[in-house]
Amino acid sequence: MLSKTNRTVIKKGAHKAVTEVEKLHAIIDESLIAHIAITNDSGPVVIPMLAWRVDNYVYIHGANNSRLLRSLQKRGQTCLTFTLFDGWVLARSAFHHSAHYRSALVFGQFEKVENSQEKNHLLNHFIEQIAPGRTQDIRLSNEKELKATMLLRIPLTEASVKISNFGVSDEAQDIDIPVWAGVLPYRTVVGPLQACEDLYEGIEEPDYRSAYPNRWQK
Amino acid sequence: MLSKTNRTVIKKGAHKAVTEVEKLHAIIDESLIAHIAITNDSGPVVIPMLAWRVDNYVYIHGANNSRLLRSLQKRGQTCLTFTLFDGWVLARSAFHHSAHYRSALVFGQFEKVENSQEKNHLLNHFIEQIAPGRTQDIRLSNEKELKATMLLRIPLTEASVKISNFGVSDEAQDIDIPVWAGVLPYRTVVGPLQACEDLYEGIEEPDYRSAYPNRWQK
Repeated sequence: MLSKTNRTVIKKGAHKAVTEVEKLHAIIDESLIAHIAITNDSGPVVIPMLAWRVDNYVYIHGANNSRLLRSLQKRGQTCLTFTLFDGWVLARSAFHHSAHYRSALVFGQFEKVENSQEKNHLLNHFIEQIAPGRTQDIRLSNEKELKATMLLRIPLTEASVKISNFGVSDEAQDIDIPVWAGVLPYRTVVGPLQACEDLYEGIEEPDYRSAYPNRWQK
Repeated sequence: MLSKTNRTVIKKGAHKAVTEVEKLHAIIDESLIAHIAITNDSGPVVIPMLAWRVDNYVYIHGANNSRLLRSLQKRGQTCLTFTLFDGWVLARSAFHHSAHYRSALVFGQFEKVENSQEKNHLLNHFIEQIAPGRTQDIRLSNEKELKATMLLRIPLTEASVKISNFGVSDEAQDIDIPVWAGVLPYRTVVGPLQACEDLYEGIEEPDYRSAYPNRWQK
């Protein structure tokens, strides 16, 4: 269960608040992108970063000379936001139109993963999440490449989750309006694979569908 | 063409920078969600908000008593970030794995749309974007509902766009590795419509596919 802190109590739309850790994990795993706030001289900036989870940490990575990562590493408290848009709620009144979505806010502080072996393991874990089995076939990172990569992590100790999936909620007096009402769902599909042009002949197309249950399109 | 300012010059991955206004518009229109940074006592918070574009403005809305919207309205400079994840780039080396994406950062200051008629028009425009023709059938907002809704807008005068769609880029010495390389595309599909349970019998399913070229699933 996610515990409540000053930052994670949901005041607006409290009925959408969810405290199961599994749901937090599912949102992060499906999102792929974390939106992270930094503040510079001219005000706040929101940066989208690839993010992946291993156990109870979220990882981001980039070039070792990246000013953004350096600043995130030095910075104190930060916030990562993950959002999945699941569809439109089409009500009988304009006012009650709304969205189905899942979102998670993670609060905390980034720390650097310094150990090369650990970095290698975590970066390969990321590739395995995307393409199961792939790290057995590709060239893994060498020491120089690992040194050029900065890997930061943030623990999932303070987070809030909001899920809106309640369907249509109309005013009683609007139910008789002769208009269709319901949900227009959105979902992300994955595939089919697109080979690069200089691929060697005879190389078989891999099968990564196990990472994408119900979402793989051949 | 988007003009360069201190905040919109892209320093990292400059070859991904794009300056066509049409591409900025397309990213905003497809994203639906803006990630907006605010700063409160305990640090930065990134909030996902529904956002839609009409001409050269992006609009967000919410309850008139929303502390978030009130604070966004009063705040000075802010940043809205829109991100679309388009797929994984599966290279021959772990190091060159990357992502295809499109992202836009919009900088500026929110202002309130006060006029009820204008609010009504802009909110209905949003519904028409989602479901063409729908505002002819639903009950439109009354004065009380319009008063309860806060509508904010931000002009698209300062923005940066980054598009990564370059496919696989491997080291020359890795080309011979006998592994599949290419792109694993992601895309969002829409539909089929899910009617609510208390729908009147005989109400026909509407056809909103014209708003979703190549994305509609029946």
